[in-house]
Amino acid sequence: MPFKDFTQGKVVKIWDGITGPLYHSDKITFGYFTLEENTDLPVHSHIHEQWTHLLEGELFFDINGDRATMKPGMMAYIPPNTPHSGKAVTRCQVIDVFIPVREDFVAKEKATPDDNVLK
Amino acid sequence: MPFKDFTQGKVVKIWDGITGPLYHSDKITFGYFTLEENTDLPVHSHIHEQWTHLLEGELFFDINGDRATMKPGMMAYIPPNTPHSGKAVTRCQVIDVFIPVREDFVAKEKATPDDNVLK
Repeated sequence: MPFKDFTQGKVVKIWDGITGPLYHSDKITFGYFTLEENTDLPVHSHIHEQWTHLLEGELFFDINGDRATMKPGMMAYIPPNTPHSGKAVTRCQVIDVFIPVREDFVAKEKATPDDNVLK
Repeated sequence: MPFKDFTQGKVVKIWDGITGPLYHSDKITFGYFTLEENTDLPVHSHIHEQWTHLLEGELFFDINGDRATMKPGMMAYIPPNTPHSGKAVTRCQVIDVFIPVREDFVAKEKATPDDNVLK
């Protein structure tokens, strides 16, 4: 599978207001997510390292007390097991990178009907 | 360093026609690269896994015989030690992801003057 088209295929709901297609290798998960305006991401943490690349919109992040309102072209790094929260100030497009694979996202993807695709 | 702004900072020349800022963790390298129109990437390979996310433009890739002309929203996966070549059909913006760290890019970055920034 050398090529993946994130403009097609199954759209997975990750959280209220956060949806998008996913890709998993044996060690990494990529999510091409849309965050609807005003989506709140409550404080949570996970074992995965996370890098969030902001492509469009304005995204506030609080990473264990370090805060920024991100603009396109910015990236946030969330170390493993680090509490973080966020808010989509506007509608946002991000590429999220997780190491290792987000098995919880794999499960959500499997539970999503095949016809739940981008319209 | 929870936040990184790829719209600022040192711009590294990776290859003729390929430039951009870099970020390295202990295990991963991200490159926010601009490829000038008609840039040819000759066949080469490296030990790193590579994922190329195309944000803007049209990018042809040949990954060990698998070929595609990518559009924005597409990703290419290049396994370790796999010959690949490419051509920027138009000017392109990509996010390249490498595992492990591209030490050769680290060296290029160190050799780049600090004042070589985005204008």
